[in-house]
Amino acid sequence: VAKQIGKREPPLTFKAILERARKTGKIKQPRVAVAAAHDEVVLEVVCDAQTQGFAQPLLFGDEVRIREMAKRRRIQLGSCEIIACGSDRAAARKATEAASSGDADVLMKGVVTTGTLMKAALDSEVGIKTTGLMSHVAMIETDYFKRMLFMADGGIVIEPDLEQKVEIIRNSVAVARALGVTLPKVALISSIETVNLGMKSAVDAAIVSKMADRGQITGAIVDGPLAFDNAVSPEAAALKGVGGPVAGQADIVIVSHTDVGNVMYKALTYLCPPHVRTAGVIVGGRVPMVVVSRVDTYDARLNSIAVACVLAGVR
Amino acid sequence: VAKQIGKREPPLTFKAILERARKTGKIKQPRVAVAAAHDEVVLEVVCDAQTQGFAQPLLFGDEVRIREMAKRRRIQLGSCEIIACGSDRAAARKATEAASSGDADVLMKGVVTTGTLMKAALDSEVGIKTTGLMSHVAMIETDYFKRMLFMADGGIVIEPDLEQKVEIIRNSVAVARALGVTLPKVALISSIETVNLGMKSAVDAAIVSKMADRGQITGAIVDGPLAFDNAVSPEAAALKGVGGPVAGQADIVIVSHTDVGNVMYKALTYLCPPHVRTAGVIVGGRVPMVVVSRVDTYDARLNSIAVACVLAGVR
Repeated sequence: VAKQIGKREPPLTFKAILERARKTGKIKQPRVAVAAAHDEVVLEVVCDAQTQGFAQPLLFGDEVRIREMAKRRRIQLGSCEIIACGSDRAAARKATEAASSGDADVLMKGVVTTGTLMKAALDSEVGIKTTGLMSHVAMIETDYFKRMLFMADGGIVIEPDLEQKVEIIRNSVAVARALGVTLPKVALISSIETVNLGMKSAVDAAIVSKMADRGQITGAIVDGPLAFDNAVSPEAAALKGVGGPVAGQADIVIVSHTDVGNVMYKALTYLCPPHVRTAGVIVGGRVPMVVVSRVDTYDARLNSIAVACVLAGVR
Repeated sequence: VAKQIGKREPPLTFKAILERARKTGKIKQPRVAVAAAHDEVVLEVVCDAQTQGFAQPLLFGDEVRIREMAKRRRIQLGSCEIIACGSDRAAARKATEAASSGDADVLMKGVVTTGTLMKAALDSEVGIKTTGLMSHVAMIETDYFKRMLFMADGGIVIEPDLEQKVEIIRNSVAVARALGVTLPKVALISSIETVNLGMKSAVDAAIVSKMADRGQITGAIVDGPLAFDNAVSPEAAALKGVGGPVAGQADIVIVSHTDVGNVMYKALTYLCPPHVRTAGVIVGGRVPMVVVSRVDTYDARLNSIAVACVLAGVR
């Protein structure tokens, strides 16, 4: 109990996650299957992850273009394995197949669309789907906030129903715990902290929060509805008189719609760029997935690979 | 047409808005009816607005406590008018009545709850409601973004239907234009920029965007669905190949649910506090309303009063 109440590791940072990924990599480097790797931006970051010693890339795609791009951009392919594929769709399927068969530990999106890769990932034959829900977990670190903030689902499950919300919580709690947050505090976010019966996000939060009280969600402390301010700020919670075990101390915020999470991390990234660092993974499948895109920063891409590799190592 | 295409005033900032409010105040100071003004935080900011010369406060509430608080905190009541009210509810009704009868130009929330004040504002007898929808418009300025960003509705209309979305756009366009953004560019925000038929925010955005194309929304350039990144960043729009007249240049972002807007400005405010400045007003009624709360910063409160006073002057 003592361990549950107060003790916590030193604050989780992306720096610490990268360190951990490199350290673990000295023993065993997770194999990262990249779907459609013939892209300079993609090649650069996966090869850096290899150079830094935490990933072993398996490059599925157009071998000729991969070699050309690497030469032109002086990217060290090193011991990257290249698996030639005839099309982006084939690359998505073969990379996914590697992940589902155990030949790869992480699945990463290259220049294939997220839709095409998710289709392969969810495919009954080659896919990596298990009985659980696959959902997105974002991580956000800023220069002015004391801890790593996890957020779900800003990417995959558009408007989760109650069962999906529970699975989204379980997935994000698993990620936070694997990264060292012993007993994460989970805030179910709405616009307000009172249970407004006309607001679905508030009503759902009340239901899910009570499910957690009854032991239907474990390994985390769950409360809601909370507004974002009283979820993360003890001062805002005190000023508004909001109590409970999560108010002001949330490690994980669960949002009611992808629009909420999507706008949240994009607003931070685009309106305060120098002070915000992010990562994102899709979990709930056989292996963690990285689906960063060209518009993400280099750091967001590298952080995401590191997070996925640490998760792959913990499994 | 030339004027519509490129010409724009110098960038709109809160500093410029405060200047304009002070300048206009030299001719005529809008009367700000404060509902339940017996609160130090409220008194301080409305009296500062008076000292700075842009507002004439009408303080509805507990006169004894107002005078005590002012004395204790050395707040200059100056020529503030105090209207004694027996309860917070009475203060809300009387302040609203002043606004609806023309005795006040701005309605501001004191320590009464937003619910109580909105009930008075929407009351058929004393209220300030007109035929239009009342909705919230937030304004966000950061040290790293080139222009003032307007956002609606993060506060009042929980999950607007199509007609309400159109009215929310009209309200926010009216605010932006009154503050000097000649022809605002409006982005209808979803998680993605393609019309995903399973995502209501994207489908609604497509419909409303086409309504604007057909001239059903005027005074602004409207496009959507856009994701937040390709709405505000020309680089993100280019990388994702998103075209159109708004991509990368949005002045106004319209969100699909109060949760989206609420989390957006709270995430910025609480995760990057030194670089973010905000304001918020409720418009669409007979007078603009200010509903800032104790958790808002002093600057957010003062900026909101200044915005409301400028809007009251433009009417």
